[in-house]
Amino acid sequence: MLRPASLLAAAFAALVCACSRQPLRVGSTLYVVERDSKTLAAVDMETLAVTARIPLDADLRHASMVFDPELRYGYVATRNGRLSRVDLENRSFAGVLETSKNSIGLGISQDGGTVAVSEYEPGGVTIVDTKTFTVSQRIAAEKDGKPSRVTGLVDGPDNTFLCALMDSNEIWQIGRKDQVDPRSQYSVMRRFRAAAQNPFDGLITPDGRYYVNAHFNSGVLSLVDLWNPEADARKISFGPASERTPVKMPHMGAWASAGDKIFVAAPGEHKLHVIDAKTLAYSRSIELVGDGVYTVVHPYMKEVWVTFSGNEDGKIQIIDTRTEKTIRVLETGKKVYHLAFTPRGDRAFVSANASNELYEIRTSDYQVTRKISMNSPSGIFGVWRAWQIGL
Amino acid sequence: MLRPASLLAAAFAALVCACSRQPLRVGSTLYVVERDSKTLAAVDMETLAVTARIPLDADLRHASMVFDPELRYGYVATRNGRLSRVDLENRSFAGVLETSKNSIGLGISQDGGTVAVSEYEPGGVTIVDTKTFTVSQRIAAEKDGKPSRVTGLVDGPDNTFLCALMDSNEIWQIGRKDQVDPRSQYSVMRRFRAAAQNPFDGLITPDGRYYVNAHFNSGVLSLVDLWNPEADARKISFGPASERTPVKMPHMGAWASAGDKIFVAAPGEHKLHVIDAKTLAYSRSIELVGDGVYTVVHPYMKEVWVTFSGNEDGKIQIIDTRTEKTIRVLETGKKVYHLAFTPRGDRAFVSANASNELYEIRTSDYQVTRKISMNSPSGIFGVWRAWQIGL
Repeated sequence: MLRPASLLAAAFAALVCACSRQPLRVGSTLYVVERDSKTLAAVDMETLAVTARIPLDADLRHASMVFDPELRYGYVATRNGRLSRVDLENRSFAGVLETSKNSIGLGISQDGGTVAVSEYEPGGVTIVDTKTFTVSQRIAAEKDGKPSRVTGLVDGPDNTFLCALMDSNEIWQIGRKDQVDPRSQYSVMRRFRAAAQNPFDGLITPDGRYYVNAHFNSGVLSLVDLWNPEADARKISFGPASERTPVKMPHMGAWASAGDKIFVAAPGEHKLHVIDAKTLAYSRSIELVGDGVYTVVHPYMKEVWVTFSGNEDGKIQIIDTRTEKTIRVLETGKKVYHLAFTPRGDRAFVSANASNELYEIRTSDYQVTRKISMNSPSGIFGVWRAWQIGL
Repeated sequence: MLRPASLLAAAFAALVCACSRQPLRVGSTLYVVERDSKTLAAVDMETLAVTARIPLDADLRHASMVFDPELRYGYVATRNGRLSRVDLENRSFAGVLETSKNSIGLGISQDGGTVAVSEYEPGGVTIVDTKTFTVSQRIAAEKDGKPSRVTGLVDGPDNTFLCALMDSNEIWQIGRKDQVDPRSQYSVMRRFRAAAQNPFDGLITPDGRYYVNAHFNSGVLSLVDLWNPEADARKISFGPASERTPVKMPHMGAWASAGDKIFVAAPGEHKLHVIDAKTLAYSRSIELVGDGVYTVVHPYMKEVWVTFSGNEDGKIQIIDTRTEKTIRVLETGKKVYHLAFTPRGDRAFVSANASNELYEIRTSDYQVTRKISMNSPSGIFGVWRAWQIGL
C-alpha cells in the first residue's frame, strides 16, 4: 500500500506531466470582441471553437487590441476608458487600469515595454509601463490651453507613437526623451500642422515612413514623411473624386496599404480611392457596391477586401490590387464589418454581428469552410499582430 | 491535522497554480544553431540567456528552421538528411525523421499542415504531414531518367512550394492535386525551364508573385512570374556588372527584397547588386567592403545589413535602401555571418561563430547592447518566421 508521501509524489509527477503535456498553442488563438455580452472570446483557429470567454467590464464599441512581442499579454482599450489586460497563455483576464473616461485606440512599442492609449476624455495619451502594468505618464493634449481629443494612434519607428489631435489640428510623434534609455519619460518629439481641420483616423505605411491622416468631413488627407519631416503635413487631395471624404466617424482599418498603392474607402460615396504610395497622388476611384467600412489587404497584397454598412452590410467586395477590378462579391451574414486574414493568408475570418456568427473563408476559392455561433461578434484580433508594424 | 485526501487536494491546487503561473513566453525565444556542439540553443530575448540546449543528432552546417503557425513545433532540416522536430512550448526535442541522405532546406505550408524538405541525395522533395509527423510522400526529382538535386525551396501561395532542380535546370511549383482538399497528394503543378544552367538559391517576393533563382557560376538570374506563368523563366542579367554572379555555393538569405528593390550580394566581387523589383532590370551595384554572405533587410525596409566571409568576416555593412549609401560598417566578433532582426526591428541578433558569442544590437543607434557566450553559434531563427511568407 502506498503511503501518503508516495501518493503525493505520484500526484505531483502526474500533474507536472499533465501540465507540460497540455499544449497551449498560443499562436492558434483569435480574439473576438463580443460587443453585446461584453466578453472577449478566445477562438482556436484549428478547431474553430471558443476556448475561453473573458468578461470585460467595458463598453466594447470600437474596442481595439494589441499584443506584446513575447506573446504573454494582450491589451484591450475600450470606450469607457479602461485598459484590460489578457493572459494569452491561460486565455484569461489579467487586470484592468482606468486610463481615462473614454479611450479610442492604442498601440504597443516595438520593444513591448510601453502601451500608449489615445484618449478622448480628457484628451491626451496615457503611457502604460507593461512590466508593472501601471500608468507611468499622462500626456495632456492641448494647444493654447484648449484641450483636444486624440485619435489615430499607431506605433512608429524607434519605439515612438504617432497620433492626431482632433480638435487642435496637429499630428504628434511621441517618444522617449532619451531614445535609448527605456526608463526615460515619453514626450512630444515632433509636432506637425495638419493639412485641414479635425484629423482623426491614421495609418503608417509598413516601411515606417509615411503617417497619413483622414479628416472629418473633408476631402483631403494629411501626410507626414517621417524620413523627411517638415513643420506642416502635406495635403493630399482626392481631386475630382470627392470634396468630403471620409464623411463619417473613423473606422480603424478603413484604409489599407498594399505595396505601391494605398486604398481608402470613402463612406457615403460607394467608392474606394486609390492613392499612389510613391508619388502620393490620387490615382482613381473604384466603384463599390455600397458604403465601405473596412478595407483589408490580403497578406500577399494581391487582393483588397472591403466590408459595408447600410443595406449592403453582409457583403464583402474582393478587388484585385493590380487590375483594380472586382473579382467577386461574397455574401455571408448580417452586419459583416470586421475581417482578418491569417498572417500568411490561407484563410480569412469574418464576424457577422447581427447574425451572431463567425465565418472562416478559404482564400484560394473564396468558400466559407466553417462557421460558429458567437454573441454579436465584432473586432477580430489575431495574436500575430504582436509582430506587425503600425497596429 | 490534514488527512491524506486533503493533502492531495492542496498539492493539486498548488501545482495547478504553479503550472498556470509559469509563463512560457513562446514569442520571446530565438533558436540558435550551435554547429560544433550539434545543439540547438533556445535563447530568451528578454534576459538574453540560454534557456534550453537541445542536442540534435545531425550535421548542422546550413541547418534551416521553420515554425508552424500555431507555435507548437519547429522543424530543423540538416545535411545528414534528418528532419528534427522541436517542441516550442517546452523548448525540447520532439522527434526526428530520416527524409534522405542529405537535405538542404525546407518550407512549411501556409496552413501549417505540410513541411516540404528539399533533398540533395536522393534528389527530390520529401512531403511530411505535420499532424502525424510522418513522411507522407517522396517526390523524386528527375528529368529524362536523370536525377537532380533540389534546392532553393520556399513556400508559395495557396499552400504550394517552389524549388529548383539544380542538375536538370528546372523550377518546380509543387501543390496538392486537389488544392482545397488537405488530404490530397502533392505533385508537380508547374515546370519552368530555368534561364541558365544549375539554378540553386531562391527567393519569393513577399507578395508571392516572383520566384527568383541564382545560378551556380553564372551572371544571370531566373525569374518566374507566378501571376503570369510562362513555360520559360525570364532571364535577368546583371549587365556589365558581372559575368559570373554569384560565384559560389548558395547561402539562403544572400538576397533580400525591400519594397521596390531586390538586393543580391555577389561573393567574389565585393558588390551588392540592386535590381528593380518592378521592371526586374539590373539597376546598379553598391561597393561592399568584402565578400558578401548574407543580405538582410530591416523590417522597416529602410536599411539592408550585409555580413562577410574572408578577411572581413567580422564586419556588418549597413546600407540605406533609398540612397544606396553605406551608413556605417560595424565590427563585432569573428566569423559573423548570421543575423536576424526582431520582427518589428528594434533589435538585431548576430552570431559570431569563431568568437563564440551572440550579440544584441540596438538598431536605433547601432550599439551592441548585450552579448552572451555560445558554442560556435550559426543560424538564428526567431519564432516569428511562423507568420512570414517565403521562408
